[in-house]
Amino acid sequence: MAQIISFSSDYTRNAHPAILKRLLDMGMEQNVGYGSDDICRSAADKIKKACECPEAEVFFLVGGTQTNQTVIDMLLKPYEGVVAAQTGHVAAHEAGAIEFSGHKVLPLPAEGEETNTDKYGSNIGKISAKELKDYVSNFFADDNHEHMVFPGAVYISHPTEYGTLYTQKELEDISAVCREFNLPLFLDGARLGYGLMSKRTDVTLKDIAELTDVFYIGGTKVGAMFGEAVVFTKGGKPAHHIPIIKQHGALLAKGWLLGVQFDTLFTDNLYLDISRNAIDMAELLKERLQEKNYEFFLDSPTNQQFIIISDDKLAELEKNVGYSFWEKYDDTHTVIRLATDWATTRENIDTLMKCL
Amino acid sequence: MAQIISFSSDYTRNAHPAILKRLLDMGMEQNVGYGSDDICRSAADKIKKACECPEAEVFFLVGGTQTNQTVIDMLLKPYEGVVAAQTGHVAAHEAGAIEFSGHKVLPLPAEGEETNTDKYGSNIGKISAKELKDYVSNFFADDNHEHMVFPGAVYISHPTEYGTLYTQKELEDISAVCREFNLPLFLDGARLGYGLMSKRTDVTLKDIAELTDVFYIGGTKVGAMFGEAVVFTKGGKPAHHIPIIKQHGALLAKGWLLGVQFDTLFTDNLYLDISRNAIDMAELLKERLQEKNYEFFLDSPTNQQFIIISDDKLAELEKNVGYSFWEKYDDTHTVIRLATDWATTRENIDTLMKCL
Amino acid sequence: MAQIISFSSDYTRNAHPAILKRLLDMGMEQNVGYGSDDICRSAADKIKKACECPEAEVFFLVGGTQTNQTVIDMLLKPYEGVVAAQTGHVAAHEAGAIEFSGHKVLPLPAEGEETNTDKYGSNIGKISAKELKDYVSNFFADDNHEHMVFPGAVYISHPTEYGTLYTQKELEDISAVCREFNLPLFLDGARLGYGLMSKRTDVTLKDIAELTDVFYIGGTKVGAMFGEAVVFTKGGKPAHHIPIIKQHGALLAKGWLLGVQFDTLFTDNLYLDISRNAIDMAELLKERLQEKNYEFFLDSPTNQQFIIISDDKLAELEKNVGYSFWEKYDDTHTVIRLATDWATTRENIDTLMKCL
Amino acid sequence: MAQIISFSSDYTRNAHPAILKRLLDMGMEQNVGYGSDDICRSAADKIKKACECPEAEVFFLVGGTQTNQTVIDMLLKPYEGVVAAQTGHVAAHEAGAIEFSGHKVLPLPAEGEETNTDKYGSNIGKISAKELKDYVSNFFADDNHEHMVFPGAVYISHPTEYGTLYTQKELEDISAVCREFNLPLFLDGARLGYGLMSKRTDVTLKDIAELTDVFYIGGTKVGAMFGEAVVFTKGGKPAHHIPIIKQHGALLAKGWLLGVQFDTLFTDNLYLDISRNAIDMAELLKERLQEKNYEFFLDSPTNQQFIIISDDKLAELEKNVGYSFWEKYDDTHTVIRLATDWATTRENIDTLMKCL
Repeated sequence: MAQIISFSSDYTRNAHPAILKRLLDMGMEQNVGYGSDDICRSAADKIKKACECPEAEVFFLVGGTQTNQTVIDMLLKPYEGVVAAQTGHVAAHEAGAIEFSGHKVLPLPAEGEETNTDKYGSNIGKISAKELKDYVSNFFADDNHEHMVFPGAVYISHPTEYGTLYTQKELEDISAVCREFNLPLFLDGARLGYGLMSKRTDVTLKDIAELTDVFYIGGTKVGAMFGEAVVFTKGGKPAHHIPIIKQHGALLAKGWLLGVQFDTLFTDNLYLDISRNAIDMAELLKERLQEKNYEFFLDSPTNQQFIIISDDKLAELEKNVGYSFWEKYDDTHTVIRLATDWATTRENIDTLMKCL
Repeated sequence: MAQIISFSSDYTRNAHPAILKRLLDMGMEQNVGYGSDDICRSAADKIKKACECPEAEVFFLVGGTQTNQTVIDMLLKPYEGVVAAQTGHVAAHEAGAIEFSGHKVLPLPAEGEETNTDKYGSNIGKISAKELKDYVSNFFADDNHEHMVFPGAVYISHPTEYGTLYTQKELEDISAVCREFNLPLFLDGARLGYGLMSKRTDVTLKDIAELTDVFYIGGTKVGAMFGEAVVFTKGGKPAHHIPIIKQHGALLAKGWLLGVQFDTLFTDNLYLDISRNAIDMAELLKERLQEKNYEFFLDSPTNQQFIIISDDKLAELEKNVGYSFWEKYDDTHTVIRLATDWATTRENIDTLMKCL
Repeated sequence: MAQIISFSSDYTRNAHPAILKRLLDMGMEQNVGYGSDDICRSAADKIKKACECPEAEVFFLVGGTQTNQTVIDMLLKPYEGVVAAQTGHVAAHEAGAIEFSGHKVLPLPAEGEETNTDKYGSNIGKISAKELKDYVSNFFADDNHEHMVFPGAVYISHPTEYGTLYTQKELEDISAVCREFNLPLFLDGARLGYGLMSKRTDVTLKDIAELTDVFYIGGTKVGAMFGEAVVFTKGGKPAHHIPIIKQHGALLAKGWLLGVQFDTLFTDNLYLDISRNAIDMAELLKERLQEKNYEFFLDSPTNQQFIIISDDKLAELEKNVGYSFWEKYDDTHTVIRLATDWATTRENIDTLMKCL
Repeated sequence: MAQIISFSSDYTRNAHPAILKRLLDMGMEQNVGYGSDDICRSAADKIKKACECPEAEVFFLVGGTQTNQTVIDMLLKPYEGVVAAQTGHVAAHEAGAIEFSGHKVLPLPAEGEETNTDKYGSNIGKISAKELKDYVSNFFADDNHEHMVFPGAVYISHPTEYGTLYTQKELEDISAVCREFNLPLFLDGARLGYGLMSKRTDVTLKDIAELTDVFYIGGTKVGAMFGEAVVFTKGGKPAHHIPIIKQHGALLAKGWLLGVQFDTLFTDNLYLDISRNAIDMAELLKERLQEKNYEFFLDSPTNQQFIIISDDKLAELEKNVGYSFWEKYDDTHTVIRLATDWATTRENIDTLMKCL
């Protein structure tokens, strides 16, 4: 990149130094394969403790789409689909990975900005308990439902793909609908740390463990080289998860590489501490953008910020700064995403603002 | 059925007597299997002639969902999906048969009644060339499109699931977009005869052969015991269609059973003649319903009619008449479908109207 | 076919006249769709009675490969495969229909002719309880079995693809292994009638219902136009078999067409009576072939006979007679299959023998 | 592991120090995602140079089964399967990953020890050009082949799962058959370095690039943390490999992690240099085992050695040493695998031999 800095995403860098150091310190240490090692066990124990969820079952996968595909396939019967916001990652941006494993994504309209009525920020990217209940009720009330795809699980992301967050109350309501209809609730936490450390959230890790049936703690975007920790919160991991994971091409030979990373992230609160930095820097960025009168596309309480920028300005910007194209706003303006991460510094923000 | 008559669908009866007679007359005649017989060849030739499309390649399958699944799988690369109206049969009512074969259905909003502006009837259930073009253009303009499901073919039904019809101009426009983006256009003609014989259509079989890349001529709902004739209008059937069909569980051992039926239907214009009866009876039904001031849910120019009926009246009706539940209209009314078919008689309509 | 007669297979002709008559007699009778009609219910009841198996659950599909694919998919978890003889139809001749639905066929060596030691005919095409037990025991004893495909069901065909039959004792032994390892046993009865009516069998329909978990009664090759009756012998049909069947493209709209055929076949013992004819004619054929000193490729007790014929003779034969190529025997000889069926007559045999 | 050392596999340790150092030295460096970065480009260039294959197209995946599944799916049409030795990794030890993507593995008998006649070691685990040609010729000669799974590509591993190697002549012959039948040849090089550095091979990296259509260079087992470099040797990578890879859940967000590793391995001949160590140590191990009169299960010229050991001895061994169970040899003996790797030292061998 000839650009001097990038705010294009939260996965542009390597891992937190503590992880790299520990990997280096392993030297010629040998471990058994496929996640059956002691380090994975230790990492799983620390995660269960952090979730206050001793009955949980935890395993580790490499990436987000892989995790969504594998977990959803574990949850569904062949004739079932997964309910998700139409803007959800599984619905929109996984190149058909869910359909590749034979399942339909059943899209719910994601809520729009107009419903943005409270201190928690926009609702874009979220589903509501009411819409979910209507959808599922109508499905089973339809005389023809045996000719349709059965809803078999519910997928939400937190933060969503738009950086927005569910409130505790919203999660409780969604969870209640899921339990009423016996649908497992799966939460994609690819950016979970940034959600938990938001200044505008009342949701804790323990809440998530209580209210979902399975969720994952994202490492790739939050301090790890790669890796996602899958938590079956009430137990209930499939009896033979190894062949299922392998069948998906998702079984890492040196599974302990994942264990080392999550064991480090869940020692001394590192995961949440470094997540907080991304939020602090996002808040700083917002202030600085507001000072310069940039218009926000939506009100995001996490590390992804979306602004509307003139195409002229954008042409300038991209000479020096990496950003993510989001969508065309109108003929002369574009929506872009700027993401902070666990390693963003004040100097990085300064550098960015000089170019804006 | 304790009911005295059914208008629930157009597949409640056996085949046209000419087909049954011919099947009976075969006696102990022997034929080779899997559609490689002379009768299938004859039927294919007659269909090509009826379509004025000598370069076409024709084969026969058993049912509609099977045909949609098999043909779409033939058209798509593994990472591609099929664009369809969100109310399209492949999107809504095939229990995930498309996803079962690994492909996503990419839903376009189906046009609503408010756009019903002309003599051709409602637009519900249709896609528009403009929406299609916007969707496909936006897809390729999106920087992230390599992370999304590529549109690989376009599915339309004619008549649609709501009995509505495309105009010649609309088909031309959709076809033009498909050609611009090199997307094969696939037309589901499960009720094709009833579309072609509508009083309010300017679309002929030849038009359909010209404007689509592949379509099928429905037999199950139009006079056959079962069977759908797939027409690759420009050639281009996959080199090895037999193993593909077999892999889908869709290869009928006694393929000539399909040949006999379509050979009969395409002799002496039988297919269109018997289709006309369904239209005539639907028109009669509409008149009679209007006389009794029934409210129509939409304006359908084909054999499926949709009325809004009070739940009290409906409770009476179902003691004697088969109908299809469509959807709840409000707290005290329901939308139902009444379908005529190739065999419906004036007496049938009289019987129905006595119960309404 | 310019040929005067065909012994190429047992699916060259239409249905038994009693079935065709009944279909004709239905006239304009209307029935509800998808197998939920009274005729299917009646047919299922008659089949349960014939099997002496009141707790069974019965439904109907159109063809053999479709049935194998759908039933096996119902029996297996995603990471499981089906054990079958390497010569089994699902392993060798279904164009990958099982793999299409995501499952591996786990092949067992089919027994060879050398083990042909008793009055029951050859063992070619069969698996043995011992081989099955060894395979499954070794699988679970293997430290690496979580990296392999789990055996999840066992498929046998009876008669096999070589016309051979299991004895009652062999079925008991295979069934016992299946129960020991909790593997459902699925029997492909595409030609079941011809097995049950063999002069050299001690296996009854009741035995099959007792010893298997699911099997099907073939109609396509035994007197029906098409159709296979699936019997879940201990109950245990999946809760939602309709969407599963539809997802496979296998749900016939006019399901009662299948009901009518099986209801007729299971009235007044018709199924077994017409099966007996095929056996009688096969026995006659064998006698006549022996008189002419034809060499048999294997000793088949059912309606498929396999002879070794010189290529010169074969070139003559095929001018007048349809047969099935089986395999090259040596540089100057070929193995061919000659199949009788429910409708074969003495005159047919005479005609054939004149050409041999 | 309470054991003091492990020879269980060649993926027990982290990466070569040069890789770890470089990863550490990256500090807060930012890179673009999904393998579109400059480091991946550099690594690809170095690999193309090492293969003397400028027209090649190279990309990187995370693990072996994932690579086999993704590449084979890229090579095959839906109705095609991949030909492989029945002992091949894709046939035996990938939990059905190939079938998961809808394709059958078409097993060839792997050659047995009895054919071990030359200086190159055993033939176990290999296929022969003759068997391959017979199989494919017979397939197309079979009148029924449209009902069978078409061979669509050929998979070989080098070294095989038994540590054995093809000779240059054998590869040429297999390659010639593939070209005759227009079947792409895919070589699994999960342990490629150990094959190339064997004392008993006449096959070079350039030979492999010439004789195959696609192969991969294993990193996971040869000095990387993880990663496999896929080389389409004649170009011909699918137009849209990104969505295909993503659909398989195999697209690493931080693709440059793979680039860094392979760029390091292909700088200053590191990949081959460290591979040589594994061979040197395997040769030393063999000598030492021979001195102690251990019996070898087969003659392996690479880093995996297979010995027959008494169960008593084995019970002792496993208190201190990790090994791989291979199979039971007889009632009192077991075959185990001992694998050296790029990091094995003479001291490691000494430690092992003290326990044997």
